[in-house]
Amino acid sequence: MNKVKMGMVGGGQGAFIGAVHRMAAQLDGQIELVCGVFSSEPQCSFEYGQQLGLNESRCYHHFSQMIEQEAQLPEDERMEFLAIVTPNHLHYSMASKAIEYGFHVICDKPATISLAQVLTLARQLASSNVLYALTYTYTGYPMVKEARHRVQSGELGDLRKIIVSYQQGWLADKNSEHQKQAKWRLDPAQAGPSCCMGDIGVHAANLAEYISGTEITHVCSDLTSAHDNRVLDDDGTVLMKFGETLKGVLLASQVATGEDNNLSISIYGDKASLQWQQQTPNTLTLHFPDSSTQVIRSGIANKSKLAIESMRLPAGHPEGYIEAFANIYRNFAAQIRAKKENRQLSESAMDVPGIAEGIRGMLFIDSVVKASKSAQKWHEVKGENLHD
Amino acid sequence: MNKVKMGMVGGGQGAFIGAVHRMAAQLDGQIELVCGVFSSEPQCSFEYGQQLGLNESRCYHHFSQMIEQEAQLPEDERMEFLAIVTPNHLHYSMASKAIEYGFHVICDKPATISLAQVLTLARQLASSNVLYALTYTYTGYPMVKEARHRVQSGELGDLRKIIVSYQQGWLADKNSEHQKQAKWRLDPAQAGPSCCMGDIGVHAANLAEYISGTEITHVCSDLTSAHDNRVLDDDGTVLMKFGETLKGVLLASQVATGEDNNLSISIYGDKASLQWQQQTPNTLTLHFPDSSTQVIRSGIANKSKLAIESMRLPAGHPEGYIEAFANIYRNFAAQIRAKKENRQLSESAMDVPGIAEGIRGMLFIDSVVKASKSAQKWHEVKGENLHD
Amino acid sequence: MNKVKMGMVGGGQGAFIGAVHRMAAQLDGQIELVCGVFSSEPQCSFEYGQQLGLNESRCYHHFSQMIEQEAQLPEDERMEFLAIVTPNHLHYSMASKAIEYGFHVICDKPATISLAQVLTLARQLASSNVLYALTYTYTGYPMVKEARHRVQSGELGDLRKIIVSYQQGWLADKNSEHQKQAKWRLDPAQAGPSCCMGDIGVHAANLAEYISGTEITHVCSDLTSAHDNRVLDDDGTVLMKFGETLKGVLLASQVATGEDNNLSISIYGDKASLQWQQQTPNTLTLHFPDSSTQVIRSGIANKSKLAIESMRLPAGHPEGYIEAFANIYRNFAAQIRAKKENRQLSESAMDVPGIAEGIRGMLFIDSVVKASKSAQKWHEVKGENLHD
Amino acid sequence: MNKVKMGMVGGGQGAFIGAVHRMAAQLDGQIELVCGVFSSEPQCSFEYGQQLGLNESRCYHHFSQMIEQEAQLPEDERMEFLAIVTPNHLHYSMASKAIEYGFHVICDKPATISLAQVLTLARQLASSNVLYALTYTYTGYPMVKEARHRVQSGELGDLRKIIVSYQQGWLADKNSEHQKQAKWRLDPAQAGPSCCMGDIGVHAANLAEYISGTEITHVCSDLTSAHDNRVLDDDGTVLMKFGETLKGVLLASQVATGEDNNLSISIYGDKASLQWQQQTPNTLTLHFPDSSTQVIRSGIANKSKLAIESMRLPAGHPEGYIEAFANIYRNFAAQIRAKKENRQLSESAMDVPGIAEGIRGMLFIDSVVKASKSAQKWHEVKGENLHD
Repeated sequence: MNKVKMGMVGGGQGAFIGAVHRMAAQLDGQIELVCGVFSSEPQCSFEYGQQLGLNESRCYHHFSQMIEQEAQLPEDERMEFLAIVTPNHLHYSMASKAIEYGFHVICDKPATISLAQVLTLARQLASSNVLYALTYTYTGYPMVKEARHRVQSGELGDLRKIIVSYQQGWLADKNSEHQKQAKWRLDPAQAGPSCCMGDIGVHAANLAEYISGTEITHVCSDLTSAHDNRVLDDDGTVLMKFGETLKGVLLASQVATGEDNNLSISIYGDKASLQWQQQTPNTLTLHFPDSSTQVIRSGIANKSKLAIESMRLPAGHPEGYIEAFANIYRNFAAQIRAKKENRQLSESAMDVPGIAEGIRGMLFIDSVVKASKSAQKWHEVKGENLHD
Repeated sequence: MNKVKMGMVGGGQGAFIGAVHRMAAQLDGQIELVCGVFSSEPQCSFEYGQQLGLNESRCYHHFSQMIEQEAQLPEDERMEFLAIVTPNHLHYSMASKAIEYGFHVICDKPATISLAQVLTLARQLASSNVLYALTYTYTGYPMVKEARHRVQSGELGDLRKIIVSYQQGWLADKNSEHQKQAKWRLDPAQAGPSCCMGDIGVHAANLAEYISGTEITHVCSDLTSAHDNRVLDDDGTVLMKFGETLKGVLLASQVATGEDNNLSISIYGDKASLQWQQQTPNTLTLHFPDSSTQVIRSGIANKSKLAIESMRLPAGHPEGYIEAFANIYRNFAAQIRAKKENRQLSESAMDVPGIAEGIRGMLFIDSVVKASKSAQKWHEVKGENLHD
Repeated sequence: MNKVKMGMVGGGQGAFIGAVHRMAAQLDGQIELVCGVFSSEPQCSFEYGQQLGLNESRCYHHFSQMIEQEAQLPEDERMEFLAIVTPNHLHYSMASKAIEYGFHVICDKPATISLAQVLTLARQLASSNVLYALTYTYTGYPMVKEARHRVQSGELGDLRKIIVSYQQGWLADKNSEHQKQAKWRLDPAQAGPSCCMGDIGVHAANLAEYISGTEITHVCSDLTSAHDNRVLDDDGTVLMKFGETLKGVLLASQVATGEDNNLSISIYGDKASLQWQQQTPNTLTLHFPDSSTQVIRSGIANKSKLAIESMRLPAGHPEGYIEAFANIYRNFAAQIRAKKENRQLSESAMDVPGIAEGIRGMLFIDSVVKASKSAQKWHEVKGENLHD
Repeated sequence: MNKVKMGMVGGGQGAFIGAVHRMAAQLDGQIELVCGVFSSEPQCSFEYGQQLGLNESRCYHHFSQMIEQEAQLPEDERMEFLAIVTPNHLHYSMASKAIEYGFHVICDKPATISLAQVLTLARQLASSNVLYALTYTYTGYPMVKEARHRVQSGELGDLRKIIVSYQQGWLADKNSEHQKQAKWRLDPAQAGPSCCMGDIGVHAANLAEYISGTEITHVCSDLTSAHDNRVLDDDGTVLMKFGETLKGVLLASQVATGEDNNLSISIYGDKASLQWQQQTPNTLTLHFPDSSTQVIRSGIANKSKLAIESMRLPAGHPEGYIEAFANIYRNFAAQIRAKKENRQLSESAMDVPGIAEGIRGMLFIDSVVKASKSAQKWHEVKGENLHD
């Protein structure tokens, strides 16, 4: 079995998520990094690629150079998919160019920096033969898949309430703004219309929609920032409706002093409720009205085929963030293989966030930013020309 | 040292909170139940009093009978304070009558069923010589007092965000409505304008104000009920402002399937944050941006004098809800003694929720009910004639 | 219903457990403290009794004075039972004298300071008409009763292994020896042949035997002390056999730096296992081989009638150490009432540790002390003249 | 930077640990699997190698074939180190042959199936130029390294007590014996003199010695098995001495029904104590006598350089078992590189368990098996000809 060939843009010195993408891709031994552009500084890019052990000829200086030269290589040598791990503002143009040249794309979230961009991208994809994935990492966790299954199978009954909370503290201090990771996220030109909601709120919204299998239809939003000079939000709360009878609350903050990466979700149905916390990801808790609380552990009592297939270790051997991330890569690689070999996708290969989730994310960001500025309570979540 | 003499109204067969009040009052051996009316059925009341071991002559049939006859007894025999543990709609008239006859009053929350009532009661109290306490139980926990102290001492820095959540599930099922406890809480005539916010939301709001030492100034509110026939809310979320820079979110539900009495609070400042959970009340967690998380246990590393004085056991011996409740009774008994002996109040004797907290509670309920019905986002929390 | 009348010996200024006994006795309003000797200093005793609000004539100066004078009082006035809360070395003689005068006795553990003493006491009791209880507090917790029930009902299958651990750190530091509580516990004349095993190891052994419903038959023991000057143990480990197929390990320490009162037990059967921790006493965890972990909470999914009857609050309202202690008092009071009224004991009234548990405790202490001094591995747990 | 070339023996279809070794080796992109023998069935081995994407010519049929043919390959092509992931009884001969041919070796624990074997192997290594590593996985966790550092830096003071517990339940049921993983572990010919102690007890002993920086000198041991037909232990408890003043207890079981992989350790010093649990590996808890408990999280407040260098993600992004395992591989790869380039080893490259830990492990197994059979309590842990 040959490895699937990956190229990367972004993720050089000082980056966080690029290295995670590489570890996630390598973990299962099914993907091989063959080329990349790792910095906007051509020389830095070249040197970093060499450090990673890439063939010198494929340590590129520029993005367009990479795309164009890779496209020239023989089919069994050239990159098969591009991983985009740059700041947000580059996602759209890079994905678009890769699609144009026929490369599959896996992109960090959010898909783009505007609703308009993601809709254009969706149209381009629809008329291409290219696969597209978006790394909503948290849906890669086995217990999140188990949670989704428990909802789908009716174990919770009719859903009534979703509470999802994503608390980080790394931007609490004013001085944090000088970090590389902070700078672009707080800059509307690079991050888009939101910092907190675009960076982590969108993860929380995706998690809620993924597990519940429903869509946010209305929001009431209150975004703030802890320091006057910040033009984008670093904290916010969103009241949500998912249709008529299901309500929710989304809390997100990057200034919650002392919090690391505290993402948690509680979903209440009329028969039972569930709770999952990212910082202890290997358990899922189910509460029932008149019986004992059930704690489901990875590998024990899992009913979801997708969950079971996304574990690598027996019960009691903790799997973490990289493994969750790797599930997205592994499934995306399976999609690519299936496409190449003209095979039907397995269920797990379909379990990859894609452009539909990208649109949902941009709709969410767009809606909560608008809603926050309004004196009115509720706002419909809708894109103006979504189905044109 | 003679025991302080207590009378009780409410809390007979099938009641929950009445028995808790009695245990809380008895725990420390400083208060003696001497009389009571325990039911609206005169004969039931009489029999229940006898079961409790009261002197037959002081097992009353009616509330007014108790007040009037007790007032006739010699000073060293008669009841010194009245504990009101009836449904909400009786709080006002009973407290008012007790005050009129010169009895001190301790009342279950909320103080009354309307803002107007509590304001009238406050005026009556102001012109009386009577002490008044309200059993916001959760502020009786030592670790809650410790939390308040940590905020006051500046350990958290300037506060930015409060998240308080109170999740119960006992009204989730439609059939729950037939329980005695449910019936009156869901009936506006007995409960006032809100079920969930009046019963538990008001505890959460009080907890947030007590620990933070600030007041909610604006709310945005969304109240719902899980079953169409319910005219009062059984679930709700409130966005809050505490002045200019501190924001908050309050979540409360009685239909959160599978939850018992899950009250928790997180407070974020610009230097540190804290977290407390009622179901594991003997610890308080402090998070800092760049140092280890501190878990403060009852009896170890407590800096608050009030916290230390409100513990009865060495570290590692769990104290619970009854002990928290008993702290309010013990402090109220100390107030009564100090008044009798014309002594100044100790700091802990002052640490009892009173009519001011009663007004805050009714303002909160009134505001969130109004705000929920409005299409507008934010509403000021204010009483129209508050300072007349 | 008249309250049951209690006298107390011990538990004055600076004592810990005396105040706990009083709160436990008062909590449910069924027991009344009527007299006491609270100090070996006659004047201190007298004054402390007055502080507690006792009638001056019943604030005694000496133990024998109390016993003799109370015995003279009319039946409906005099103390009905004596609570012994002194250091260990006084337990035997005081219990013996109280029995002689026909007073029921409730005594803090261990029953005596030697196996010989407890056997003599048992014989005296057998030929008396007196009730005797021993405050093995931890068996008063509802979830401990639930655990016992789960074992008895066969839910765990055949038991294979018990791990019980009791970690405290208060004697870790050399200076701790000057505390009142430490002084007598480290003195063989007052404490008996063991400090750690006599004070807390015996609780752990009792807990293991209570939940499992079996008896320790053999021990291998290693007792130590952290400071050279200590003649008694402050730490120890005991390997145990309970008959042929059930094995166990008991760990106890008073020098486990940083631990408060960390008592926990795990019991493994061939079908399931359970775990309970005293510092979070309101839950009981059951593990199964191929299904989810069950967390049983106080008030939810409890199958033990004894557990249910020993709770005072609905689920989610934590009960703690005092409530567990109060269950022993409440049940003992019910025993006394039943005896007086010549009624049969209810099941819960029988659920009180008594002289049989006292003998088991002294056998345990005696055995582990002897076994620790031996170079041989295993020692039978047996009293030489146990059934004479 | 070229990848280090790895060969593997064992780890084919149905194996557990082989796949973990491969993921651990691949995670950081510094090691490349180039050849292997994956089964004792030559054809199975060949096909499995192809599934893994290996070059056909290097999917070997036999172990000796692999060693001999690889040795013939040009230096820049041939395998640099061999990973041995077979049942225990093959460890010695395979490691020995690999050393003979000059290949570095990384081997699953325990090093061999007898003390004599490991001593012979140590002598062979001493006279070779070959590197040797042993995958005591749990010492790869960052928080375990942090724990070791806290002990070394004196934060705990003088150590007094170590409690280490490793509970699994997968062999509880008799039918479990038919699993591939169980069969060889319960067979003395393949597993050596112990099942439970050889498989997991040895991990617990290594963890205790690694963190504490001391060695077990004496043991008192009680090994059992839950089913009569089992000739090897599946459960055991070991009392331990580490020199004069430090004592310990080691509990290990494979028949602890309902447990997954519950390894935990508590270490008590005279100043502080620490606790770590493998199932929540990203935190380390420190307890102090009179101050708050400190919870150290991966990435926050870590003082150990080794811990910091062994993390891949920012705080709050859980790392698990594979990452811990990968730390051993990454450091071993660094050793190999340093040797090749004649550079000095970095501190982290030295942080790899090796033959010394292999000898300690075999000594432990040998000692506890002998001690368990003896009627005497204590046994010295010593190898007869250890320093010949």
